[in-house]
Amino acid sequence: MSNTHTPLAPAFFSEVGAPSITQIEAAAARIREHAVVTPLLESAVINELTGGRILFKAEVLQVAGSFKFRGACNRLMQLSPEQKQAGVVAFSSGNHALATSAVAKLLGVKATIIMPADAPKTKVEGARDNGATVILYDRHKDDREAIGAEISRQSGAVTVPPYDDLYIMTGQATVGLEIVEALADVDVVADVVLAACSGGGLVGGVASAVRAKSPATAVYAVEPAEFDELARSLASGKPERNSPDAKSICDALQVVTPGKLTFPVNQRLLAGSLSVTDDEVRDAMRVAFKHLKLAVEPGGAVGLAAVLAGKLDVKDKTVVVILSGGNVDGDFFAKVLGG
Amino acid sequence: MSNTHTPLAPAFFSEVGAPSITQIEAAAARIREHAVVTPLLESAVINELTGGRILFKAEVLQVAGSFKFRGACNRLMQLSPEQKQAGVVAFSSGNHALATSAVAKLLGVKATIIMPADAPKTKVEGARDNGATVILYDRHKDDREAIGAEISRQSGAVTVPPYDDLYIMTGQATVGLEIVEALADVDVVADVVLAACSGGGLVGGVASAVRAKSPATAVYAVEPAEFDELARSLASGKPERNSPDAKSICDALQVVTPGKLTFPVNQRLLAGSLSVTDDEVRDAMRVAFKHLKLAVEPGGAVGLAAVLAGKLDVKDKTVVVILSGGNVDGDFFAKVLGG
Repeated sequence: MSNTHTPLAPAFFSEVGAPSITQIEAAAARIREHAVVTPLLESAVINELTGGRILFKAEVLQVAGSFKFRGACNRLMQLSPEQKQAGVVAFSSGNHALATSAVAKLLGVKATIIMPADAPKTKVEGARDNGATVILYDRHKDDREAIGAEISRQSGAVTVPPYDDLYIMTGQATVGLEIVEALADVDVVADVVLAACSGGGLVGGVASAVRAKSPATAVYAVEPAEFDELARSLASGKPERNSPDAKSICDALQVVTPGKLTFPVNQRLLAGSLSVTDDEVRDAMRVAFKHLKLAVEPGGAVGLAAVLAGKLDVKDKTVVVILSGGNVDGDFFAKVLGG
Repeated sequence: MSNTHTPLAPAFFSEVGAPSITQIEAAAARIREHAVVTPLLESAVINELTGGRILFKAEVLQVAGSFKFRGACNRLMQLSPEQKQAGVVAFSSGNHALATSAVAKLLGVKATIIMPADAPKTKVEGARDNGATVILYDRHKDDREAIGAEISRQSGAVTVPPYDDLYIMTGQATVGLEIVEALADVDVVADVVLAACSGGGLVGGVASAVRAKSPATAVYAVEPAEFDELARSLASGKPERNSPDAKSICDALQVVTPGKLTFPVNQRLLAGSLSVTDDEVRDAMRVAFKHLKLAVEPGGAVGLAAVLAGKLDVKDKTVVVILSGGNVDGDFFAKVLGG
């Protein structure tokens, strides 16, 4: 783990399999046609509550409601004409489904999306509304990667993985690039950046951009308490697994084990991984509603949850929290607000 | 009413009592230190639903959760040192209270706020949290302007009216200036801009900026169905009054009659005024939550409600909808989502 202020040489990133800053800048230029440069928001009340300066990178305002649009856009824009003709297949807990189907629609590419049967209905319906063919699977019994591979074999469709892919991680890294660039414009260096972690593509990509451009900034992952595979894997030095009985309201942050490509990157670039409980996440969703006026889904609120619950010392620090997604069912959100 | 594409001479604005573009640009420069240049957001789904290109000026992301911060900021920043010492008094249904108290706190000025006893609790508590002294009055019995005048007489505090004030209207006008400038950056001219109307400071200010900088753009007010005093006043040519029994979920949009300063401005600069029912507003709040990921209060959602309910032909048009505020109680919002 690297949480010091040491400048990192370009070679370091390629050695660990991380996207280079050149690749990230190229991705940012590529996706600019379709993706939103999301704003950094700030609330005086949240600053007072926490004692820090907390800036929010509002990826809930991204196309298709999450940062996932960036990776999918970066991948699909680099398909060959033949690949575009054959279409794409993606497996996803939801946001990657929405993102891939949204990009596919924009580019006129046929998309097949494999989603867990218990995904939020706003995510399943959204993918269908984008014109994708949705195949539901049982999260506890079926192997989504095998289903995807079979579809790809039969149709020639290109698989668009949710995180273990350099195109995808490079796309997600543009979140980090935008953070550093926006802060540089106002002569601010963040002490900390917090990103949600499931497969690790977002936090790994963000760390690749941030550590290259702003070596004094520490990047932390944030995970749901029962899906803290990265925290345990960083501690043990090898990929650990979550219990098959693990539960969380963060539907977007449920993987079994760290990604093959993303884990070495996160191992070398992150300052650590924090974890938060469901109650802490609900509290963060209410605070984001009240003080930021944003609909943040559970998995998108873990960074704010970590700050509010004091999982990190933010006093007098500048902390950027990525609000990574806002695709949450209205009835679930209503229950959180009522609680 | 002027809904043609005629360029308007600068003298025209001063004749009707509207802020000049020079005053608006000066206000924009003045408040930049504290106010957010809010983003213009777009949803492919909402575009498809409506057949137009609908851009959302997200004033819910403004400091203190509504456009009202702009006017209050423009006013308080121009207080003399003696006036700052004496403090300010404001009467408000809520958003102007939050805004004035937030600016007062930033500038170290004492604020007394007179609010209706039935204002949303998030607005009353927010003003208190900002350090203001809050005085509650009965919307149906008491005269808030008289209460304010008495406090001002006793303490020497400067009254900060919610709309009938050139400083305030000029501050609100910066919303319109930002819209035109952001669109000019991407070579787009809006066909229509929609702004909520209560006292008329927002829509009058916005029209002053938009009609000066973009004469081909029509500006419409949007009002709650039972508080459509502006629509009726525009039709009759004189200030009409709302029924004392009028009801609306739009707590922010309940005035008795158009403002003395704002009505002549709106009479000359607006293309008209549309009105929407409570059910149309609830539907708009749900759409904004689902597709924009924003918490929009009832009064902030009337423009979107008008578009979704087909109150205006938006097919193949570029329409800017100002989402003017997001200060809504969680329990009320939960009920709307559940409905």
